[in-house]
Amino acid sequence: MINSRFQPDEWKITETRFEPENGRDSESLFAMGNGMMGLRANFEEKYSGDTLQGTYVAGVYYPDKTVVGWWKNGYPDYFAKVPNAPSWTGIEVTVDGESLDLAVCKVKSFRRILNMKEGVLTRTFTAVMTSGRTVEVTACRFLSMSEPETAALSYSVKITGGEGLLVMKPCLSADVHNEDANYGEKFWENESAESDGPRAVVTAQTRKTAFVVATAMENVFYADGKQVKVMAVHEANRDFASSTFEHRYHSGEVFEVRKYVAVLSSLNHPAEGISKNAMKRASEAALKGFDAMLESHKNAWNEKWERGDIIIKGDIEAQQGIRFNIFQLNQTYTGEDPRLNIGPKGFTGEKYGGSTYWDTEAFVFPFYLSTSDTHVARNLLLYRYKQLGRAIENAGKLGFKGGAALYPMVTMNGEECHNEWEITFEEIHRNGAIAFAIYNYIRHTGDKNYLTEYGLEVLVAISRFWAQRCNWSEEKKKYVILGVTGPNEYENNVNNNWYTNTLATWTLKYTSDSLEWLRSTSPVKFNSVVTRTHLDPDNELKHWKEIIQNMYLPVHRDRGIFLQQDGYMDKENLTVGDLDPAERPLNQHWSWDRILRSVFIKQADVLQGIYLFEEEFDEETIRRNFEFYEPRCVHESSLSPSIHSILASRLHDTDSAYKLYLRTARLDLDDYNREVKDGLHVTSMAGTWLSIVEGFGGMRIRNDRVCFNPVIPPAWESYSFMVRFRNNPMRVEVNGKKVTVINLSEDNIPVAVYGKETVLGPGAKENFEK
Amino acid sequence: MINSRFQPDEWKITETRFEPENGRDSESLFAMGNGMMGLRANFEEKYSGDTLQGTYVAGVYYPDKTVVGWWKNGYPDYFAKVPNAPSWTGIEVTVDGESLDLAVCKVKSFRRILNMKEGVLTRTFTAVMTSGRTVEVTACRFLSMSEPETAALSYSVKITGGEGLLVMKPCLSADVHNEDANYGEKFWENESAESDGPRAVVTAQTRKTAFVVATAMENVFYADGKQVKVMAVHEANRDFASSTFEHRYHSGEVFEVRKYVAVLSSLNHPAEGISKNAMKRASEAALKGFDAMLESHKNAWNEKWERGDIIIKGDIEAQQGIRFNIFQLNQTYTGEDPRLNIGPKGFTGEKYGGSTYWDTEAFVFPFYLSTSDTHVARNLLLYRYKQLGRAIENAGKLGFKGGAALYPMVTMNGEECHNEWEITFEEIHRNGAIAFAIYNYIRHTGDKNYLTEYGLEVLVAISRFWAQRCNWSEEKKKYVILGVTGPNEYENNVNNNWYTNTLATWTLKYTSDSLEWLRSTSPVKFNSVVTRTHLDPDNELKHWKEIIQNMYLPVHRDRGIFLQQDGYMDKENLTVGDLDPAERPLNQHWSWDRILRSVFIKQADVLQGIYLFEEEFDEETIRRNFEFYEPRCVHESSLSPSIHSILASRLHDTDSAYKLYLRTARLDLDDYNREVKDGLHVTSMAGTWLSIVEGFGGMRIRNDRVCFNPVIPPAWESYSFMVRFRNNPMRVEVNGKKVTVINLSEDNIPVAVYGKETVLGPGAKENFEK
Repeated sequence: MINSRFQPDEWKITETRFEPENGRDSESLFAMGNGMMGLRANFEEKYSGDTLQGTYVAGVYYPDKTVVGWWKNGYPDYFAKVPNAPSWTGIEVTVDGESLDLAVCKVKSFRRILNMKEGVLTRTFTAVMTSGRTVEVTACRFLSMSEPETAALSYSVKITGGEGLLVMKPCLSADVHNEDANYGEKFWENESAESDGPRAVVTAQTRKTAFVVATAMENVFYADGKQVKVMAVHEANRDFASSTFEHRYHSGEVFEVRKYVAVLSSLNHPAEGISKNAMKRASEAALKGFDAMLESHKNAWNEKWERGDIIIKGDIEAQQGIRFNIFQLNQTYTGEDPRLNIGPKGFTGEKYGGSTYWDTEAFVFPFYLSTSDTHVARNLLLYRYKQLGRAIENAGKLGFKGGAALYPMVTMNGEECHNEWEITFEEIHRNGAIAFAIYNYIRHTGDKNYLTEYGLEVLVAISRFWAQRCNWSEEKKKYVILGVTGPNEYENNVNNNWYTNTLATWTLKYTSDSLEWLRSTSPVKFNSVVTRTHLDPDNELKHWKEIIQNMYLPVHRDRGIFLQQDGYMDKENLTVGDLDPAERPLNQHWSWDRILRSVFIKQADVLQGIYLFEEEFDEETIRRNFEFYEPRCVHESSLSPSIHSILASRLHDTDSAYKLYLRTARLDLDDYNREVKDGLHVTSMAGTWLSIVEGFGGMRIRNDRVCFNPVIPPAWESYSFMVRFRNNPMRVEVNGKKVTVINLSEDNIPVAVYGKETVLGPGAKENFEK
Repeated sequence: MINSRFQPDEWKITETRFEPENGRDSESLFAMGNGMMGLRANFEEKYSGDTLQGTYVAGVYYPDKTVVGWWKNGYPDYFAKVPNAPSWTGIEVTVDGESLDLAVCKVKSFRRILNMKEGVLTRTFTAVMTSGRTVEVTACRFLSMSEPETAALSYSVKITGGEGLLVMKPCLSADVHNEDANYGEKFWENESAESDGPRAVVTAQTRKTAFVVATAMENVFYADGKQVKVMAVHEANRDFASSTFEHRYHSGEVFEVRKYVAVLSSLNHPAEGISKNAMKRASEAALKGFDAMLESHKNAWNEKWERGDIIIKGDIEAQQGIRFNIFQLNQTYTGEDPRLNIGPKGFTGEKYGGSTYWDTEAFVFPFYLSTSDTHVARNLLLYRYKQLGRAIENAGKLGFKGGAALYPMVTMNGEECHNEWEITFEEIHRNGAIAFAIYNYIRHTGDKNYLTEYGLEVLVAISRFWAQRCNWSEEKKKYVILGVTGPNEYENNVNNNWYTNTLATWTLKYTSDSLEWLRSTSPVKFNSVVTRTHLDPDNELKHWKEIIQNMYLPVHRDRGIFLQQDGYMDKENLTVGDLDPAERPLNQHWSWDRILRSVFIKQADVLQGIYLFEEEFDEETIRRNFEFYEPRCVHESSLSPSIHSILASRLHDTDSAYKLYLRTARLDLDDYNREVKDGLHVTSMAGTWLSIVEGFGGMRIRNDRVCFNPVIPPAWESYSFMVRFRNNPMRVEVNGKKVTVINLSEDNIPVAVYGKETVLGPGAKENFEK
């Protein structure tokens, strides 16, 4: 276990030292968000040390011109990036003419506390200026979870050791750039700024995409707790606005700025008048006041915790780790807007730019499905539904016809943004994950209407893709899918990836079955689907059936395993134990061809398929595959260990499950991969949640029933989690002796624990033993 | 057949119209070179129309920083590019203050003639200035083949319609750039210029690589045929130098500049004093005079034609085409310097930057081997020998050890320059082509010493690579080579490419046999090789033998063909006839994944292997493979049709052979691929030569004998070609009735024509009938 930089605590992440060498790491770890916007934990006051400045507004993107070595037909022209937006946390502080800057001053004490329960970040420090004056600062910020276009921060300063002049200058700045800009371009233009005493607004527009973002502040100044009506000096240049508060200080006097902020984007407001509107919203926040805003904010967080907390007893580090993960997921996505999605780094950094990957459906979707109201998961599905037209266009660029859809590898608006042929064009299993999410949603929520109204259009389009993408092999007398990259990105352009072929066949079958069900239950609705999709039900379904019955699914009979891909068994037969630890991670030490021809797997691939369709395989089949593939998996994706952990739990191998769980649980908090400086692995955090709920808790939806088969890691006294089934919440408590399920809803919930089926009435609480 | 822009002519390429829309095409087609330097046919006078300015100096390169979308371990930092060097053809002409510029004037007549026999380019035109004055220009240039650091041009002007002031300003300019610079960088620095009356020099140094190039001129002016001792106005700025000749002209008077040029590079001269040296060389050239220089130049060309001409009777377009190809090969590489090689575009454009590809060994090498003195081919081998250390470093970057070498895909100095993993890391068959060239050289020349002194070091290093690159497949109980790209770049990352596996096995065997031969014939020399290569003869050879005996070579038993790669027969079974012509060429219409999973082959792959090792296969095997693969080959590489044509000739299918031959014969002259603007396909021109000599002529070296099995295309009356065996030249004449072989040497030459073996004595001429 890596030695943590942070004190073990159930609810808090506390940093106790100023460590400039970890500056970017902490900026990521203490990042804040509320689904609508977010920011890295950049300091309020000037900081001339190393920093990655980051302020992000959900849904706003810039199409950064593609960089490519060797162009291939079909590559996109741009990679959509969430631009670093105008910053609003800045407060320049000058004491007797000297800038407060922790890279320059002597820092005597420093403490930063993230309160995850309340969603509040507090920073306190004492610094000694070159003049010898001691400055004590307390800064506190939150991004309102109840009014997600607003935020507030309080910044108080006490100077001891003499008297002099204190200047505090809260500001807004649109003079920002992205470190990862491909060509060093500025992403913003048409900046303007206005100020009006303690109020100001900065407005900027993204180049090319013309999103307008208005960032406003209203500042209230206090001296020794009393509001000061200063005649604020204020300025507004093109991309910068500030209010200035100057005060003669006496030793020990406390000065505070309360900065109320509103960030509005043209995604949600008319661009016309958006500056005024933002200024008005900032003023309204100021009028409401810091404490009242904070109160609503805390209440909103409280609700989130009530719906989705996991409590672990007996292992405080595990408790801290899982809460950190749940906290970040909730900061990133709240599910109120079907135009938004979950970027791999959320609002915590620039890396991976474009927002949406298959991570959403494969890892994050089950989290929101189980911990939020039905509409949240539904909005995630609608995001893809709304982009169906673009997915069809995308498939068209690759030569597919007749309404076949290929959803993009990475996107912001539905257009493909990724440009690596072996991924962009070949990692097509993502299409299957999107189909599976529809199925998963329906079995969880029972909302079959979704299928009729939206889901079938997506399913038909994806099925058409699979039907065109496979071809008949005269050699095998089977349908084959050639030239793909599976979830294991350490093999490219392979033939008959078992996972992809399985998912393709499943999609065709699920789509066909759903269409047949609709035809038999509601001919009118069926006809409506036919009309909307221009389906030729007889011929298309017949063709799909032919494929379903004749798809080639590679297996290795002697070993009784499913084969990763056709050529897998020709590889040099090694396991991870044969690797020189100095060559790990492989992707930093081996050339790409060497990785590709090795047996080593980046992340669950056959096992990902077994995870999805577990009920189709007997335990021995699962075990043989797990025992074959787990020793060949290097887990060089943050998404990997969680799926392996879930299967280990399924196989009652709690030791392995726990070891695998530990590889994800505090991945960012303890920075296992030395890359947290770039941002958090938000999407893989959902994997950790899955390893508890579906892994240790053994939660499954089977036959319109929620099932649990809990195990408990020996290191834990007990754990409990909250989940929903058919939107009815329940709590599951597990300790070494028994499992308790509490129905928190007003409906009956059909459950099965350790195979014992029962129906829990409203409010019922029942114990189960193995 | 595409309608040619050029009149049919045995020796000349003549352009008769000024067609600005074809400006870049003609700049490529009329490019000149002499192995040491070259240039595109840019106009002497100012030209404000579309143009690609290009002047190139052999061996001088700039490491242009790599552009890459997604970095992989092992990618090179730069791509070596031949920089556009200081230009020396410029002569600014002003008539009564108005610039002579064909993009502005009215062009009344225009003619450009490339005389391939003499290596001279002449351009004449008549232009009407806006003033109404008519200007007649005759420009003539050559790059001396006898003194390859010098060149000369004559530029004469006759103005009619009045009198006035003519200004002619011959100049040198280092203010040049490459259009293909990755980041718009300038490749030159430290420019300096000097001038001294009619003489001037411009010197510049490449950034990073610090090659210094000094370009000098001495100008002599004539009025009506008499040298004019003008007090030339001259100037020299940092990167520009000129002499100015001003004269009052009378209608009909003729003025001429003769510009003598020397281009010296620090590759061949000390950088210190290089400017003075160049100036001196230019003066010496001027002293020798235009006519004397031209005479030596023509003689040098004459020798080349005597050694390597192909004469075709009855098809003047074919005659013109093949001479154009031979001419370009001789312009590009003369074989005097083992540090130089043959870039795919020679000195005719910027595309493909770095100089050396596997084209050299696979296509161009046999041309020089058969048409030049032995030392030329030997220098091509030495080029790779000198880069062996770098090839071992290159393999080391990919994880290979113990002296294994992987020669680069593209290089200038031995370092890999290419960055596309599927090519750079996986198109490893290039290593085999380099080994095969050694074998080919020895069977042609009999120079076994080369093996002992140099060849075996390269062969051992390449064999070590193959031995490490294959692995034992438990599944197949064979050695396999996984994750490669064969010559068919329309399949990437495939397993067991038959061509690669065959070549690997062959290399191991040839190296082993050569070592055993040396051990038995000269233990001392054997020990020297062992010492130089740190060979462990017992263990390494034993291991190689094990691989040779157990290499997996994929075949399709039912069809009796060798398999392109393991998964080839799973593909949708189509042929080129099934393709929509609107989708050709595929690489401009299909996305990369679609190309990869299709059966369509870019260029000879299995057939390339059959070409190399033809004697190992019976005719029926060759036929089955040809008949299977030819209909699946889209020939979207300029290197492709020639190999197919040779095999068709081998199969006595003269019709197919001729059709395939036509696809390469005038590829650039008639611009089949609409890309001649970027430069000529110099390396594939050797393929056309091969389709005649090895194809129609059926030339082979077998058992220390040169064999011919000629066929003749019905369209031709007769053809003849010159080849050498053991450095002894001979001529082969073929018509519909008989084959005549003439020994032009003073040695015996063992030949076989149509299987009839004989020895031709010195000067002997013998006829053969089929």
